[in-house]
Amino acid sequence: MCDELLPFWLTHGLDTEYGGFLTYFDKDGNPTGETVKTLLCQARMIYTYSSAHRTGYGDGAFLDLAQQGVDFVAKRFRDADFRGWYWTCERDGAPRNMSKLTYGNAFIIYAFSEYGMACGDPRALETALDAYELLQTRVADNCHGGYYEFLERDWSKKPPGKYGGDRKSFDVHMHLMEAFTNLYEATGEELFSDRTREIIDLIFKHIIHPEFGTGVAQFALDWTPLRQILFADVWGSDRDAGDEAGRPTNNTSFGHNVEFAWLLHHAVEVLGLDVEAYKPALERIFDHTLEYGIDWERGGAYCEGPHDGPAREKNKEFWQQAECLVGFLDAYELFGDERYLDAYENVHRFVMDHMINHEVGEWYPLLDENNNRLWDYMGNAWKINYHTVRSMIQAETRLSEIVSQKGAKTAESLLVDDS
Amino acid sequence: MCDELLPFWLTHGLDTEYGGFLTYFDKDGNPTGETVKTLLCQARMIYTYSSAHRTGYGDGAFLDLAQQGVDFVAKRFRDADFRGWYWTCERDGAPRNMSKLTYGNAFIIYAFSEYGMACGDPRALETALDAYELLQTRVADNCHGGYYEFLERDWSKKPPGKYGGDRKSFDVHMHLMEAFTNLYEATGEELFSDRTREIIDLIFKHIIHPEFGTGVAQFALDWTPLRQILFADVWGSDRDAGDEAGRPTNNTSFGHNVEFAWLLHHAVEVLGLDVEAYKPALERIFDHTLEYGIDWERGGAYCEGPHDGPAREKNKEFWQQAECLVGFLDAYELFGDERYLDAYENVHRFVMDHMINHEVGEWYPLLDENNNRLWDYMGNAWKINYHTVRSMIQAETRLSEIVSQKGAKTAESLLVDDS
Repeated sequence: MCDELLPFWLTHGLDTEYGGFLTYFDKDGNPTGETVKTLLCQARMIYTYSSAHRTGYGDGAFLDLAQQGVDFVAKRFRDADFRGWYWTCERDGAPRNMSKLTYGNAFIIYAFSEYGMACGDPRALETALDAYELLQTRVADNCHGGYYEFLERDWSKKPPGKYGGDRKSFDVHMHLMEAFTNLYEATGEELFSDRTREIIDLIFKHIIHPEFGTGVAQFALDWTPLRQILFADVWGSDRDAGDEAGRPTNNTSFGHNVEFAWLLHHAVEVLGLDVEAYKPALERIFDHTLEYGIDWERGGAYCEGPHDGPAREKNKEFWQQAECLVGFLDAYELFGDERYLDAYENVHRFVMDHMINHEVGEWYPLLDENNNRLWDYMGNAWKINYHTVRSMIQAETRLSEIVSQKGAKTAESLLVDDS
Repeated sequence: MCDELLPFWLTHGLDTEYGGFLTYFDKDGNPTGETVKTLLCQARMIYTYSSAHRTGYGDGAFLDLAQQGVDFVAKRFRDADFRGWYWTCERDGAPRNMSKLTYGNAFIIYAFSEYGMACGDPRALETALDAYELLQTRVADNCHGGYYEFLERDWSKKPPGKYGGDRKSFDVHMHLMEAFTNLYEATGEELFSDRTREIIDLIFKHIIHPEFGTGVAQFALDWTPLRQILFADVWGSDRDAGDEAGRPTNNTSFGHNVEFAWLLHHAVEVLGLDVEAYKPALERIFDHTLEYGIDWERGGAYCEGPHDGPAREKNKEFWQQAECLVGFLDAYELFGDERYLDAYENVHRFVMDHMINHEVGEWYPLLDENNNRLWDYMGNAWKINYHTVRSMIQAETRLSEIVSQKGAKTAESLLVDDS
């Protein structure tokens, strides 16, 4: 991490002309000339730099990078008329897509809480609290629970279907859990501990499949499960949805499941809840990915598959690898089962050997099931340092714990690679 | 109304020494010397005076009374440290019970919206909007939908059982529907139309009995129906709960059902929804009270009974009569069925002959099934002019419509009595 990833993001990303972050880089790490700025990536980079600073990296340089990102978002993304934050802006901050997406709101809470903890100034939390208020007053569904996700600039609901006005998702609600956890950690206020517990309960009530224990991706507003479709406003370089009607009904994302599992475990620890109550649910998720989501032959984690059988979409995307690294270390720490450490080692080796562009210092975005490169950019509107750097920071912490507690040989040898 | 009720409240209620309202009056209308001020009654009196002014009564005197009530609540009931409004204060405004009850918050929204419409100053709505924000950010249950009801001063949930921290109710959620409807009418903002529709959907999803169509009173936080118990913090001179465990499981309130029905019909009209979609539900409620809730022999409406049989608690309380007057006129206007007009006439005659203390100009609070007076005060901490004056204003409007549209003889003769 210190040799490759962090140095890349110390020298790439800052927009020296307008402030904020530039996120488009080709396979060699050179700017592509594309400059659209997305709320999601500006916020995620604030999170990442703040988190790196909190973990002890950068000698203040990462905090400075976060700070100027905070200024840019506050000045350019904020909607002075209707409140909230635009979804995308031009390089100079002129608004481009003025929609209000709950996904973006969640990351404002997550990023500004992290920044508040990094800089120690309680006033830094004001933006996070503002986002919380908007979430509750504008997009909470007080009938069915959870939150509306796709809103127009004036907070009215978007049309249905691909505009998303009639849908709720695992993705958004998982990231709200992550955001509320951080807001509680930053403020210590019971109010946010309550919100975090509510959304955990909500996820288990509606989103986790009652039979298989894995996540269902999309729902109607009343939480009736629906086939997962692609939306007009995306937040990733989404792969094909399968067919016109969307992905198959029996479908779950290994990456989201494992990310949810470790974020849930983190929330349980931050909130001081009884982890024993959650262990059976965590174990089911880890075991499902262990059994169906790992390519034990060629390495790495697959994208998606049914709740109850082998993976269907066997491409290997960068962020699922990142989340599996953290998740399987968590699983090993929680359950002491060596199979989880094997899964970690599998994905770790795969990342080192295939996913990382070592000459540049970032990860390729997508390989196929035979580990051939499908996409090769280092950054774009939706891929920056959030998954990769967070994964390294979180994995390093867990590996250090494992080494110090167990002196595990495997972990020790991996830690050398990883740092 | 002009001869008795409004004159009483023009000369009673104002606290000339400290501002706000004094609400305790004995059977002769004289102050009892008790002076505790409850958020509920201060807010309801602001509503009532504002509503009377909007309807054309008082030549400005009622608006002045409302205005000084607004000032007192803003100055004395508002909690400067934790936000929100205390539940009760001493006469001079010193806080007494600093709890935060969602019931009170609902009436802040209802009363200040009405006051805003009465005085025409949009700044008057700021308090209503503040209460909306607190409701959403502090007491919304984002897992199960609806709102928590009993909070400590700092908005943490009260203990379970008689402290109410683990309960939700028809009463509170119906009055939130009423409040959101008024907030939408006062602002025209789609946001509050959305909230109103959500809470209507919520009431039908969880509160209206799926088989009988009548209201269930109390629930666990996840909307599991529970036996109705009495709480430590009350908002009425509650009658006996039946036994230790609370009222019977199969129990519904005629007054709440009919009040909900006409408030729902009002919401549907204000929001411009299709009334046809709600008519079957409204008809079931009106028919249930028509069949089981009216004393066809001695007059008046009973308190409570099972969802599917004759009334069990046959006392006749003032507010159920008030709500039945409005409700059965609504029912007659909606369905044209003469039986509803008979029910109106029955309750109207009963109120005129037994409930009203004509010498004083207000209503007795409680009679038994044989029309003997059980309680005789004119006002107390929880009984003021909200039900009685609102009922007269709303009934008069509906009777005028009926007379002008149908020239109905019955209605005409009743209108003479009533005005």
